[in-house]
Amino acid sequence: MTDLPRPDGRQNDELRPVTFEPGIAPNATGSVLVSFGNTRVICAATIEKKVPRWMNAQGVKGGWVSAEYSMLPYSTHDRKQRDVNRGKQDGRGIEIQRLIGRSLRAVIDLQKLPGHTLWVDCDVLQADGGTRTASITGAYVAAEMAVRRLMKDGVLTENPFKDSIAAVSVGVFYDTSVLDLNYPEDLAASVDFNVVMTGSGQFVELQGTGEEATFSDDQLTQLLGLAKKGIGELTELQKAAL
Amino acid sequence: MTDLPRPDGRQNDELRPVTFEPGIAPNATGSVLVSFGNTRVICAATIEKKVPRWMNAQGVKGGWVSAEYSMLPYSTHDRKQRDVNRGKQDGRGIEIQRLIGRSLRAVIDLQKLPGHTLWVDCDVLQADGGTRTASITGAYVAAEMAVRRLMKDGVLTENPFKDSIAAVSVGVFYDTSVLDLNYPEDLAASVDFNVVMTGSGQFVELQGTGEEATFSDDQLTQLLGLAKKGIGELTELQKAAL
Amino acid sequence: MTDLPRPDGRQNDELRPVTFEPGIAPNATGSVLVSFGNTRVICAATIEKKVPRWMNAQGVKGGWVSAEYSMLPYSTHDRKQRDVNRGKQDGRGIEIQRLIGRSLRAVIDLQKLPGHTLWVDCDVLQADGGTRTASITGAYVAAEMAVRRLMKDGVLTENPFKDSIAAVSVGVFYDTSVLDLNYPEDLAASVDFNVVMTGSGQFVELQGTGEEATFSDDQLTQLLGLAKKGIGELTELQKAAL
Amino acid sequence: MTDLPRPDGRQNDELRPVTFEPGIAPNATGSVLVSFGNTRVICAATIEKKVPRWMNAQGVKGGWVSAEYSMLPYSTHDRKQRDVNRGKQDGRGIEIQRLIGRSLRAVIDLQKLPGHTLWVDCDVLQADGGTRTASITGAYVAAEMAVRRLMKDGVLTENPFKDSIAAVSVGVFYDTSVLDLNYPEDLAASVDFNVVMTGSGQFVELQGTGEEATFSDDQLTQLLGLAKKGIGELTELQKAAL
Amino acid sequence: MTDLPRPDGRQNDELRPVTFEPGIAPNATGSVLVSFGNTRVICAATIEKKVPRWMNAQGVKGGWVSAEYSMLPYSTHDRKQRDVNRGKQDGRGIEIQRLIGRSLRAVIDLQKLPGHTLWVDCDVLQADGGTRTASITGAYVAAEMAVRRLMKDGVLTENPFKDSIAAVSVGVFYDTSVLDLNYPEDLAASVDFNVVMTGSGQFVELQGTGEEATFSDDQLTQLLGLAKKGIGELTELQKAAL
Amino acid sequence: MTDLPRPDGRQNDELRPVTFEPGIAPNATGSVLVSFGNTRVICAATIEKKVPRWMNAQGVKGGWVSAEYSMLPYSTHDRKQRDVNRGKQDGRGIEIQRLIGRSLRAVIDLQKLPGHTLWVDCDVLQADGGTRTASITGAYVAAEMAVRRLMKDGVLTENPFKDSIAAVSVGVFYDTSVLDLNYPEDLAASVDFNVVMTGSGQFVELQGTGEEATFSDDQLTQLLGLAKKGIGELTELQKAAL
Repeated sequence: MTDLPRPDGRQNDELRPVTFEPGIAPNATGSVLVSFGNTRVICAATIEKKVPRWMNAQGVKGGWVSAEYSMLPYSTHDRKQRDVNRGKQDGRGIEIQRLIGRSLRAVIDLQKLPGHTLWVDCDVLQADGGTRTASITGAYVAAEMAVRRLMKDGVLTENPFKDSIAAVSVGVFYDTSVLDLNYPEDLAASVDFNVVMTGSGQFVELQGTGEEATFSDDQLTQLLGLAKKGIGELTELQKAAL
Repeated sequence: MTDLPRPDGRQNDELRPVTFEPGIAPNATGSVLVSFGNTRVICAATIEKKVPRWMNAQGVKGGWVSAEYSMLPYSTHDRKQRDVNRGKQDGRGIEIQRLIGRSLRAVIDLQKLPGHTLWVDCDVLQADGGTRTASITGAYVAAEMAVRRLMKDGVLTENPFKDSIAAVSVGVFYDTSVLDLNYPEDLAASVDFNVVMTGSGQFVELQGTGEEATFSDDQLTQLLGLAKKGIGELTELQKAAL
Repeated sequence: MTDLPRPDGRQNDELRPVTFEPGIAPNATGSVLVSFGNTRVICAATIEKKVPRWMNAQGVKGGWVSAEYSMLPYSTHDRKQRDVNRGKQDGRGIEIQRLIGRSLRAVIDLQKLPGHTLWVDCDVLQADGGTRTASITGAYVAAEMAVRRLMKDGVLTENPFKDSIAAVSVGVFYDTSVLDLNYPEDLAASVDFNVVMTGSGQFVELQGTGEEATFSDDQLTQLLGLAKKGIGELTELQKAAL
Repeated sequence: MTDLPRPDGRQNDELRPVTFEPGIAPNATGSVLVSFGNTRVICAATIEKKVPRWMNAQGVKGGWVSAEYSMLPYSTHDRKQRDVNRGKQDGRGIEIQRLIGRSLRAVIDLQKLPGHTLWVDCDVLQADGGTRTASITGAYVAAEMAVRRLMKDGVLTENPFKDSIAAVSVGVFYDTSVLDLNYPEDLAASVDFNVVMTGSGQFVELQGTGEEATFSDDQLTQLLGLAKKGIGELTELQKAAL
Repeated sequence: MTDLPRPDGRQNDELRPVTFEPGIAPNATGSVLVSFGNTRVICAATIEKKVPRWMNAQGVKGGWVSAEYSMLPYSTHDRKQRDVNRGKQDGRGIEIQRLIGRSLRAVIDLQKLPGHTLWVDCDVLQADGGTRTASITGAYVAAEMAVRRLMKDGVLTENPFKDSIAAVSVGVFYDTSVLDLNYPEDLAASVDFNVVMTGSGQFVELQGTGEEATFSDDQLTQLLGLAKKGIGELTELQKAAL
Repeated sequence: MTDLPRPDGRQNDELRPVTFEPGIAPNATGSVLVSFGNTRVICAATIEKKVPRWMNAQGVKGGWVSAEYSMLPYSTHDRKQRDVNRGKQDGRGIEIQRLIGRSLRAVIDLQKLPGHTLWVDCDVLQADGGTRTASITGAYVAAEMAVRRLMKDGVLTENPFKDSIAAVSVGVFYDTSVLDLNYPEDLAASVDFNVVMTGSGQFVELQGTGEEATFSDDQLTQLLGLAKKGIGELTELQKAAL
């Protein structure tokens, strides 16, 4: 690794300050405002007594977990037009919400949500890089809160979570592998990885892209090492918040 | 007036607790989280160096003020589907954002925003009645904050606001005229009024509806009296917040 | 009031010539071509043996009344693009049709339309100001005609109308309060009110806006006086037409 | 031909009563309410100082003629949902408006409309079979009226029409070839033809379909003979109306 | 007829080389790649155990045949944007797929497809004029293949086809009537006819248009003669392919 | 690894038969029908003399590469509804086409496509697992063909490709890591990886998902080993095809 310092002075393997403020949206069953530095995302989990139509059509038992991701128009420096006014959701948002949903379903036993859909909404209030990893990390906290409340209320009899999940980005910034990129780093990075792992250290999703560049085996090894360290720390912070 | 108490024990002419938390969305030029009791709305103002196409087409000088209103899916007790998934914005939301925009333009000199659009977004975080009046009241605070910052930054040379605005609902609840209805009152009300007024006591908008009922001259007089009292108090709270 | 004459020479408290031509759309259950001066609107009422899905879902009994409003492309001096080609209905149209529907429902006992939806369509053939008030005034006539025919045909057993409704605009035109504004007056008006009242003199809806201006208590009183006079005359003309 | 009488007692080669009421939509440049028996269509022509984008892009000179066709919701016995609420225009309507536009362009010299688009809107007020042929026949009258007014006003220097057009349907109804089918005949017809011809007797469009059936050379000859007779009569009625 | 040779040296009454390559899309029940010279269309027939909603609603018995037509973006010399990105299907495509569906239904006994929909998709791989006639001609082959396989599989008990269909274009190219126009001829043609006929020589659909021109009785006779000759040859080629 | 044989009898590290048929869509600048066993995709590259609007708006120099992916309705065993009829593209398709575009841009020097967009369309003709990896592998071949033709035609002066790319899937099937999963394997797989690499052995994209399961470091190492072997073979096959 080189000596070029990170824009905000962090160590290469250092997360931004991470906080979880519970109860941001009191009408949700569980909600949290998660911050990864200046990236702030409202994560809210709600339950609906209904499953997607295809489950009924195909006779699939159990429940479902569905995620939605959106950037509020004022979350970016230049105002971002609302999807509804463009007539369709933007491709990046669709990709991210599919990732959040898949990640949650990897650690949830859908048979323990019989006849219900657990919705997890992630609305970005302030964007400064890593909105998808902050969303996943916060989504788990909001969903776990919701699940605990639903058990207390007798809606669920068992906790469907088999493990926790957290996510972090890693990337190559001026030839150096760094953890948890903020927006300026993300813009300049030649390789960009999003890693989702369980609390027990298994991989859930790995999405790495060379963004108009490519990467080697050695870089992959380094990046995954940083990601594991970051996920470990996030898992501890999640436990503390719950 | 009868003796039937209000569900939350308020006097008939009493507002819910009103608060303004500035800076909720730091990437916006001005932002505030406004609360009217349990109704909480993120109001964020951003500036764009561009005017609507029709202004250029028709050769209209000056700038523009545009508002958008949306309920976050987890703001209601039953999750509300996002507009983008329904393929279009819901009619009620369109009506409300048109009202917010008209109200702001009534007290803004558009010639003092040359070549710019001031966007004011209102996203409801928690809905408990009066989301449109909380939105207008918060929208003014966010917009005034934005305008002051734009003047400090030299983007604007004069403050385009000619006056402040605030809004409150009044209605007839079991034959009694009451101020600032919460959701249970709103559901039961036979007459529902939204009143927008300036800080100096002029009317900006008056929208009264009998909601499957009708109302008399006397009721109108009573309701407008309550509204004026409420707006006066909101105006003081806005001043304190700025 | 000042001495500035109205563009078409009317007294300040004078309606435009109002006519109702029945039977304009013979396949509808009731229809009328209503004219307020040069503003002409086709109003047609049709019945459907079906209620909106939400009524069934929520177990609401009775029937429903739904209104649709549209400006034909050639109703304005410059051709107005059809909504379907823009991909969505314009916000102003949505607002107006919601107003028409609410107004009709205020005087209809929905329990007397069991299992039916009464549709009232208002298509503007020629626009010269006051299209929404002409629409409401004509919608009542078309709906009453439809209801009488449905009673004759044995589809309905009782008349669901509890009262008649009519609507008129009032506004401040060069500091003078005037009744029933035509398009040139509407463009120049600083305050614009739409008032919907029952035949027996109760308010149904009151929508007043300062259109980039504001108004005082005194102006409000004057405007409401004019509106009541106009509604009284319209109610008589409706009776004569039925 | 058999002896089975037509439902409305007409001869096999007899048109329904045809009328043209001019001025139905006074804000249009030319307009007419055309009736073919109980089929009534508002035809309105308006001019716009603009050509379609593709003409500019491809450097095509001259002007353009564009038609739109729509059935008003109350034109049919069962209310027809508006296209904008279905989110898209129905396929049949698109097909018909493309036919109207092509037919008009066949007799118009587009070089004599330099820089302008002539819009012709056809809105069906009452549908009883033959709405597309009534639309074309009325569209020509409205467009010719508009063109004459535009010449009077100095907008156009020459009349771009090279000929008139009219249209009529013919079909096979219980093995008999008949002219100008009304709705009950249309429903029962095994072969359905729409024929557009010029005033001077040339074919413009010929659309024949077996509608789940087929037809022979002899039937084709008979049907075209009836169509020519009908078009001749419609052409005379158009001349009288102009 | 004049002596001006056709661009590709064909006789006036000569088809382009026509081929049918079966099995282009093995997951379909029947499929064929049809070529009319350089025009190549993938035709694929699939069966679905479901009928359109309106059939159930109206209590119509039997099955249905539905066609879809689309030009692949790379089928034309200049890339054609996909319909889904324009947000709606283009009018020409809608018109063509309605024609394909109607044509197939004219020779199919829908009672012999009880409870099923037969979908026929036509995707143009290379466009050089006559894509709709090649589509219909290939659609029949793909559908007949599908039907035979469904009978073999015991899904259908009888062959619902009453006859075969084929289609060809004819037109007037520099005052000469010619058969099966390719793209350069189509562009220059003053009259353009699409003729659909059964294998036994009955007409199914006749669509002739003067494309900004008109045509006479004599031209009509000549064109229909050419079309019959072409259809006869196509019918033989279809038989050979099946 | 266990002894459970693969459904089609392949070795765990064995690709399906891979073929490239050039010229499938002759109007494209370059095209190929790629087959990975029964998965067949039409890949077509076309050039457009235009860049996306945002490049002009942001003053970005060079050209662009854009990919589109779609499954033809008859590519699956149960017919898949066209996106245009659903009103929007499905989320999975958007995700895949974004991946194809990013992958191509990773090995293309956009400065060598000045002012042009290279479109690469991938339409799935038959789906049997691995449609996205077959698409990327074929997209490179089609694009390289197009680029060579554009250089021959003098449209491009230099070849913008810096390297080749190919893609393959790997996954865990009943506890065994296998290469190039077909549809039955994909359905049953607990871990699913898509790997995009350059001809020179660098990573371009790595997308691994536990699909309702998780995976370990060791599994990751095994899977990447298989992927590298597969990509190496695909690269040789691409070279042979070009």
